Amino acid sequence: MYVAPTPAELKRLDAYWRAANFLSVGQIFLWDNPLLKRRLTLEDVKPMLLGHWGTTPGQNFIYAHLNRVIKSFDLDMIYVCGPGHGGPAVVANTYLEGTYSEVYPHIGRDEAGLRRLFRQFSFPGGIPSHASPECPGSIHEGGELGYSLSHAFGAAFDNPALFVACVIGDGEAETGPLATAWHSNKFLDPVTDGAVLPILHLNGYKIASPAVLARIPAEELTQFLTGCGWMPIFVSGHEPGPMHAQMAAAMDQAVLEIHRIQRQARKYGQAARPRWPMIVLNSPKGWTGPRTVDGQPMEGNFRSHQVPLHPADHPGHLALLEDWLHSYRPGELFDAEGRLEPELATLAPVGRRRMGANPHANGGLLLRDLHLPDIASYAAEVPAPGSPGISDTRVLGPFLRDVMRLNAEARNFRVFGPDETESNGLTAVFDATNRQWDAETAPGDHWLAPQGRVMEMLSEHQCQGWLEGYLLTGRHGLFNSYEAFIHIVDSMFNQHAKWLKVSAQVPWRRKVASLNYLLASHVWRQDHNGFTHQDPGFIDHVVNKKAEIVRVYLPPDANCLLSVMDHCLRSRHDVNVVVAGKHPAPQWLTMPAAMAHCAAGIGVWHWAGNEVGNEVGTESTTAAGPDVILACCGDVPTLETLAAVSILREALPEWTVRVVNVVDLMKLQPHDAHPHGLSDAEYDALFTRDTPVIFAFHGYPSLIHRLTYRRANHVHLHVRGYKEEGTITTPFDMTVLNELDRFHLVMETVKRVMAAGGPARAQGEAGAALTRRLEAKLIEHHRYIREYGRDLPEIRDWRWRLSA
Amino acid sequence: MYVAPTPAELKRLDAYWRAANFLSVGQIFLWDNPLLKRRLTLEDVKPMLLGHWGTTPGQNFIYAHLNRVIKSFDLDMIYVCGPGHGGPAVVANTYLEGTYSEVYPHIGRDEAGLRRLFRQFSFPGGIPSHASPECPGSIHEGGELGYSLSHAFGAAFDNPALFVACVIGDGEAETGPLATAWHSNKFLDPVTDGAVLPILHLNGYKIASPAVLARIPAEELTQFLTGCGWMPIFVSGHEPGPMHAQMAAAMDQAVLEIHRIQRQARKYGQAARPRWPMIVLNSPKGWTGPRTVDGQPMEGNFRSHQVPLHPADHPGHLALLEDWLHSYRPGELFDAEGRLEPELATLAPVGRRRMGANPHANGGLLLRDLHLPDIASYAAEVPAPGSPGISDTRVLGPFLRDVMRLNAEARNFRVFGPDETESNGLTAVFDATNRQWDAETAPGDHWLAPQGRVMEMLSEHQCQGWLEGYLLTGRHGLFNSYEAFIHIVDSMFNQHAKWLKVSAQVPWRRKVASLNYLLASHVWRQDHNGFTHQDPGFIDHVVNKKAEIVRVYLPPDANCLLSVMDHCLRSRHDVNVVVAGKHPAPQWLTMPAAMAHCAAGIGVWHWAGNEVGNEVGTESTTAAGPDVILACCGDVPTLETLAAVSILREALPEWTVRVVNVVDLMKLQPHDAHPHGLSDAEYDALFTRDTPVIFAFHGYPSLIHRLTYRRANHVHLHVRGYKEEGTITTPFDMTVLNELDRFHLVMETVKRVMAAGGPARAQGEAGAALTRRLEAKLIEHHRYIREYGRDLPEIRDWRWRLSA
Repeated sequence: MYVAPTPAELKRLDAYWRAANFLSVGQIFLWDNPLLKRRLTLEDVKPMLLGHWGTTPGQNFIYAHLNRVIKSFDLDMIYVCGPGHGGPAVVANTYLEGTYSEVYPHIGRDEAGLRRLFRQFSFPGGIPSHASPECPGSIHEGGELGYSLSHAFGAAFDNPALFVACVIGDGEAETGPLATAWHSNKFLDPVTDGAVLPILHLNGYKIASPAVLARIPAEELTQFLTGCGWMPIFVSGHEPGPMHAQMAAAMDQAVLEIHRIQRQARKYGQAARPRWPMIVLNSPKGWTGPRTVDGQPMEGNFRSHQVPLHPADHPGHLALLEDWLHSYRPGELFDAEGRLEPELATLAPVGRRRMGANPHANGGLLLRDLHLPDIASYAAEVPAPGSPGISDTRVLGPFLRDVMRLNAEARNFRVFGPDETESNGLTAVFDATNRQWDAETAPGDHWLAPQGRVMEMLSEHQCQGWLEGYLLTGRHGLFNSYEAFIHIVDSMFNQHAKWLKVSAQVPWRRKVASLNYLLASHVWRQDHNGFTHQDPGFIDHVVNKKAEIVRVYLPPDANCLLSVMDHCLRSRHDVNVVVAGKHPAPQWLTMPAAMAHCAAGIGVWHWAGNEVGNEVGTESTTAAGPDVILACCGDVPTLETLAAVSILREALPEWTVRVVNVVDLMKLQPHDAHPHGLSDAEYDALFTRDTPVIFAFHGYPSLIHRLTYRRANHVHLHVRGYKEEGTITTPFDMTVLNELDRFHLVMETVKRVMAAGGPARAQGEAGAALTRRLEAKLIEHHRYIREYGRDLPEIRDWRWRLSA
Repeated sequence: MYVAPTPAELKRLDAYWRAANFLSVGQIFLWDNPLLKRRLTLEDVKPMLLGHWGTTPGQNFIYAHLNRVIKSFDLDMIYVCGPGHGGPAVVANTYLEGTYSEVYPHIGRDEAGLRRLFRQFSFPGGIPSHASPECPGSIHEGGELGYSLSHAFGAAFDNPALFVACVIGDGEAETGPLATAWHSNKFLDPVTDGAVLPILHLNGYKIASPAVLARIPAEELTQFLTGCGWMPIFVSGHEPGPMHAQMAAAMDQAVLEIHRIQRQARKYGQAARPRWPMIVLNSPKGWTGPRTVDGQPMEGNFRSHQVPLHPADHPGHLALLEDWLHSYRPGELFDAEGRLEPELATLAPVGRRRMGANPHANGGLLLRDLHLPDIASYAAEVPAPGSPGISDTRVLGPFLRDVMRLNAEARNFRVFGPDETESNGLTAVFDATNRQWDAETAPGDHWLAPQGRVMEMLSEHQCQGWLEGYLLTGRHGLFNSYEAFIHIVDSMFNQHAKWLKVSAQVPWRRKVASLNYLLASHVWRQDHNGFTHQDPGFIDHVVNKKAEIVRVYLPPDANCLLSVMDHCLRSRHDVNVVVAGKHPAPQWLTMPAAMAHCAAGIGVWHWAGNEVGNEVGTESTTAAGPDVILACCGDVPTLETLAAVSILREALPEWTVRVVNVVDLMKLQPHDAHPHGLSDAEYDALFTRDTPVIFAFHGYPSLIHRLTYRRANHVHLHVRGYKEEGTITTPFDMTVLNELDRFHLVMETVKRVMAAGGPARAQGEAGAALTRRLEAKLIEHHRYIREYGRDLPEIRDWRWRLSA
């Protein structure tokens, strides 16, 4: 039961805070002499000073008070450290509570351990200055600012017992993503979700400038936070004694209010959106650090952002540092062996209640496999290649609906997207769940409920941040979005990919579920949006990150999409990018064929080509390879390629054509560059070493060159893709504008085959005649578009004709 | 002078609104029969319906009322159309006011013109459904949502007489960038800047879901907007009559209040940050459209987002469409020839007061060249290559300071950045100006003032949005930021690059100043930030866009940086990305040499290599080329390359080495792929057709391969760059982790030269011995880092040794 803090307790709390501050300053500065057993010398100071002090004491203050309420109320809590460079604080506190030494036994709770703790921090060969994956208890590194509050909400979803304390720096509060994340409270259910306790830390400055929210009148700030739906509780000042009392009261008030809201909603049902409490902590930047240095203000000023003292360059600073360290009275806090005094040690929670040891912050520990239905039950019927009129994502929808249903009890799967779940063809999921929505509703709304597993807000940042928080705490999810606008989260993807790379190398971290993107409104089908909505470059961006982490899939049809998505939802610790179409389109593969094709990731479509024997073997391929290889990757390029093959086989039946389809883009990379990469022998078996290859690609052509430049046949590879031409027009005209259409593909094929000196004279003449015919068709096409805004009838009526 | 609207005036205003609505519905639906002179048939309806209705009537309403206050108060105003797909409204209104027909004479103000106006809209071969560059009066296309308010503020800076009306959709209001853009009012000076009038348009829905700000209590919304520093004026309802009266009053109140604020500040000086007015318009989505369609609610519902009727598929819809069109009583609005009734036509402002004709919205019209000082005055002294200890950006700082000063009167140059202008080494600009800041100040602050030309908010979105608005209205600017975090604006760059591409093709649009990025805290020098701050991929992202638009420069030293920046500030209609170092580093070129080198963009550094004759000529190069070419691009790779050359020339003096430095990255592309690209002959003269090239690159190695894969010598090109390895460590260790350091470069050189069968036996043995020696050095390096956190003394002491 709740007990108000006594003065003695607050005094102990202050001692605990001093201990954390001492450890923080030690981490930033000390190379040796960690307990100050002798006078400090320059040799005791690190040769490079790379840490950050400014935010640290405030965070130590918050952490100590969170420990208090965790113990008072037996809370299950994790800590999200938003401000940049909060490393000293989270490392100090997880060390004090014992977690740090448990996961890193060489950093023990003694003098030698302290020395190592200090040396490693923000130092070559050591640990970063953020709440990085190496730090127990962290799900949020915060190198790039803006996402702490979205991460916190993601962690709280479907964790009804969890409290997520989220410290938000006043610098971070200026970012767009954070600014909109305040509104996450309209998407949280007090019954089935946990609680987020934002702590806005106003310390006045960013790196060199004041922070906006710290420089508006308190009344205006109250209006702002109230307007964002919160109940702010203010704690303001700099004298430790009164501040401890204020902060303890604020924390108690916040926890009690959260409990009240949850009890009310869980017992009596939820009447209206609750007004959740939050704390605004206004404390000096660099609190308890040197007041002034070299005549300049330091505590409470932007100058304390980074390292306030530089003893090697300024002789007077050594004494300032020594005084500063002694100001925490370390002798009262640690014994001669460097162990925290037992009276203080008992202030930390124990076991899994310690924020550094909370399993939610090492989500892989809690991760359970999804129950996945058999994809065969959802297969599109494909009586013959080219079966028309099926939307790939609308086939996927029922599968996702049943993933929702099968895991409804486990409550560990959600779909995220900026208001596009219906637009992207996934409407079937609303048979199983709703959009989670805790704001007002009106007649005419549909599929909105306080409890729902579809999260839609028109902010890709918010969707990505929520999903990351959800995944890092051990759950599964899918982000569906427009392809062009997923660039909005390029930098968030970067940070997540970096987190995955590093956390995979941290032995005690468990793997989490993959981050799955479904980009279902893609560059080729922006019929009523136009040029602004056309950008296939996210996959270019993604493949810059570590090969172990990134996967890119471009399923050519619905059954392949099902197979790919089934794989993605089973995978771990990857980022999977899936690009698929939502409009009715021809289907090519039966489910068994699709499963085999997707398992291989790349393959020859024998039924589409006309090689003798229709088989690929290194031997025979080299002996009697085709005249040309038409390769394709992506649904629209596959369609145009097969249309081109139709034309070719009809007009030039003596030319042998091989069709290669790529689902798993990274197959193209050498196998030493990506785990999925084909060996050179495998690649050559598909593409030969000397046959012209016309490659129709979904994205920018350069990406294919970038992946294949080391391959033997690269010199004969000719790629067509998006070349930044587009407007509002027909889907087919889009391919013409970018010369990816069937006519251009055929003309390119003819040109390349003839240049390779392949066909006999008669065939060459037939090829030239075909080219002239297609040039005339293109002129006719342009006339049709100009005069009627429509495609040539033959395009509209085209059906795959040369299937077996 | 101000005159309150009479009932008759409001009635005429309503007629004007009806005319705009009629034209909007016509644009979305009609292929023919624009004046409904005969009964509507299916043949009169477009074969494809691709427009968007939902936001349109509300925007027509706003535009009409803005016209009224423009006339009443003789305002100089532009219109920023935030909501997606507002095309029908802005096209209709600029047509009504006459601007449209002026820039597109074939779309005249008669029946034939109306027919063309309707047909072209959101149709193949026609115009986009947004406020695209083709639309007069637009500086904001709004395909991707989130940036309207930042653009509006950018336009208002330094335009004291300008009013920027900015319509913000409630969907867009959910985005992060828009959420933080509300706080732009802390960065606007009422004396020297113009006014922004935000109009938050609550119509309740996004594509399929309700919008957050439309679903919170009015009191909470008031708190929110007040907390953001605004004075909201509410207009709410759906009955046209009362709504016109309310809106007219709200507009008058807003304009009067803005004038009061400006008068006060301009006459008496500014006492405190003003509380600027804004309007909240709450009106039904799809207002005045069909109430219900097929039994489903339409007006006031998300279903009216796009095209409410589909006559081709639903026979009953044709009559609904006809009724809908007639409901605007077009016969009262247009005469038989299709001309707007004169009584209505007089409601529009005239000449440049028309929002479609305001020159601020075609900024190139107003653009004046910057006064630029002579860069020679700022040159770093470089007595010999390798002169140590000069920071490139700190040399640039004084140049930028004087650009500020020289253009202080013109007030047409600003520097933008997320609180990093000092950190990036540009502190000198604060000798000439301040950070613009209109929030509270405190003792200890510096360089803050209500008037300042440095714009710093910790939001890359805001910086980019402000800058874009500033450039598109005819001014100049520079965005300085961390390289890794510029990815935050990847998608904004996309949209701006697309705007530039399209606007360059619109004959009446004038070119604007280039968007200049200075990425001064780059991947190789994140000494105290670590892995999260390391990402050189923005340039990969940039080069996907149209070659005519994008430029990438990596000056190797301070004088080259000056030369490059001088060029960028003179250029037009490009996006220039400049990557430069801020830490003290060796300098290589005198100013004359730097100017020559940057003008060429790429070149041989003869003084660094040891070829006989030290000259590059196709003839002699082919005859007696070097044994190896070491190429470099970027400051750190240049340093490591020259260090590698030092080692090579000392240890293997008989090997001939050529050093090529690249400043202008796009020189590497074929000249038919990029306007800066070298011809094959030029490229081969530098890189030969068969000599091994070891290329040390600033970014991801694949980018170099992507740019050069078509070059003859590509097979012998070996690129080292960032491969996503990093942590907090020394700058030199960063290069070792990514195998870009001098030792790896030398070992790679030896390997490749020996593989090419180049050197004689004795030289080969010397090469092998050198490799063994360097392997030992690397082991020693790792020991130094591990044990001391420091570099080998020889690295720390290294000076360029082999210069002439």
